[in-house]
Amino acid sequence: MIGDPAGIGPEVAVKALASGRVHDVSVPVLLGSAAAVERALKFTGLNARVRVMQQFEKPSDDPAIIDVIDTGALPEGVLPLGEDTEAAGHASAQWLDELDALARDGSFAATIMGPISTGSLKMAGKIDKVISPTPGESYLVLLTGPLRVAHLTDHMPLRQVIDVISSDLVASALEQLNDAMTSWGIVRPRIAVAGLNPHAAGDEDRDVIAPGVELARSKGINVEGPIPPDSVFRQCIEGRYDMVLAMFHDQGHIAVKTWGFSGNCVIMMGPPYLHMSVAHGTAYDIAGKGTADAEMMLSAMLTAGRLASGGGFEEARESSDEH
Amino acid sequence: MIGDPAGIGPEVAVKALASGRVHDVSVPVLLGSAAAVERALKFTGLNARVRVMQQFEKPSDDPAIIDVIDTGALPEGVLPLGEDTEAAGHASAQWLDELDALARDGSFAATIMGPISTGSLKMAGKIDKVISPTPGESYLVLLTGPLRVAHLTDHMPLRQVIDVISSDLVASALEQLNDAMTSWGIVRPRIAVAGLNPHAAGDEDRDVIAPGVELARSKGINVEGPIPPDSVFRQCIEGRYDMVLAMFHDQGHIAVKTWGFSGNCVIMMGPPYLHMSVAHGTAYDIAGKGTADAEMMLSAMLTAGRLASGGGFEEARESSDEH
Repeated sequence: MIGDPAGIGPEVAVKALASGRVHDVSVPVLLGSAAAVERALKFTGLNARVRVMQQFEKPSDDPAIIDVIDTGALPEGVLPLGEDTEAAGHASAQWLDELDALARDGSFAATIMGPISTGSLKMAGKIDKVISPTPGESYLVLLTGPLRVAHLTDHMPLRQVIDVISSDLVASALEQLNDAMTSWGIVRPRIAVAGLNPHAAGDEDRDVIAPGVELARSKGINVEGPIPPDSVFRQCIEGRYDMVLAMFHDQGHIAVKTWGFSGNCVIMMGPPYLHMSVAHGTAYDIAGKGTADAEMMLSAMLTAGRLASGGGFEEARESSDEH
Repeated sequence: MIGDPAGIGPEVAVKALASGRVHDVSVPVLLGSAAAVERALKFTGLNARVRVMQQFEKPSDDPAIIDVIDTGALPEGVLPLGEDTEAAGHASAQWLDELDALARDGSFAATIMGPISTGSLKMAGKIDKVISPTPGESYLVLLTGPLRVAHLTDHMPLRQVIDVISSDLVASALEQLNDAMTSWGIVRPRIAVAGLNPHAAGDEDRDVIAPGVELARSKGINVEGPIPPDSVFRQCIEGRYDMVLAMFHDQGHIAVKTWGFSGNCVIMMGPPYLHMSVAHGTAYDIAGKGTADAEMMLSAMLTAGRLASGGGFEEARESSDEH
């Protein structure tokens, strides 16, 4: 899904596709405004042909052809760049619906949400179309080289986090993670659970998290924890685990952002298919200049292709620190 | 202070001193067992002469002479390596007292606690001799290249942290930090305060931390915050700040340990002099082999010398990521 048509989404999508590398691991299709994709090709000076589909059809495997499913959500054609509009919000919402429906009916093995604008979506009254992480249902997973973190809770005040986490919540998240990772081709995934308190030595670590981990182990999941939060992310980087389950937003986000590896991928666990997004926004200030860096979109596309076909994490079992 | 005589403290101390670099920024003196230091010289094969002082005297500035203040806390001479003993605990406690007294009377401008054994200190009933971070009194500061973090709270359960932090506590820690950093030679230190909740957007961020920051600003301190916890440490690494005040143990420790730069220094803010410790333990398993890495002790010694003489943080204002 190309993201908000007023942002850099269409540009980074065509740039990533033009690399030719995406076609090595997948059969990619864009979903959104064909006119916005045509415009993005002009901005970027790339040589490719847009083929418009009114509905899902067999895509081309030729990197010179960019297939775009465009159901006409933007009847007036393209929109002004770099600003929020209700029309863009309505279109983005419709595309997200179409993306979900096509993934659920099996047309797509994986989906990537380009950079959407929450401003446009709010103007259209459609912000609820963006899946937001909800404990017990959906979890945000960040992949950045060998550092991979799932978050049990997301934008939740810390006080509430402490009250919300339960053994069942920990165990169910571990089951969901384990199932997904197994489907991605990771054999007997090694999962680490971060503790909540310093040195994982608090009441909740002992009474809530540890029993949740035990529950998951009793179901055959290869999981350890609670592990001191200040050690577990480094241990993951060094190759000891395939994934860390963090208890709250900043445990994982501090680790990922401070480590500073730039190839972030974002997975939203929850939908019954692989659903990813790009780790940057619409970048209105540079939209249309053709200069936007497509590295994160390319990384998302390559990761989506690899995981959805059971190819596992790249270099998953090598214990190296890329810095 | 050489640390527990049964651990690697004496070895890493003599190795660090033998580098000759410590004498460029300070006049170093060891405090502890002269016999343990003599033994460490044998283990390491280093060529230096131990000069024993029964009390503080003018130290030598010759790197070939290792001055050791030994008041006879270990009357039997050296102790077995690699094990906790009550005698080592008593000696360590006495050395910590002597260290503090000599710093308070001005004999030392800075002190470094070598790796002590909490086991030995507990056997001697003297664990209270080790300063432990106490909100409102003493704060742990970690320095690791351009990433520098002070911790408002330390080994405290997260639930308690949320109740303990107050505007006054934030403001007083900022004053203490600002005074110390100014004395270390940092001109108008730029301090960032981490928020508590995701995106620093919670009740406590608005009602507790922000007013604390304002209070400090009203006293002329160059401080910003609360800043989203997942951004602030990276911003410090990139040179935007000289120091981050973290709200709790794992905010700072996750950042420091995940970033993975090895030159950690530990400062305990609170005593009326610069008090540091080394960022590793007694390493009983390799004590006496002469193989222990002295990098962290050397780093502590060089940092102590530089800060105590107002030399500022090394490369403090260069915005580079050393990775």
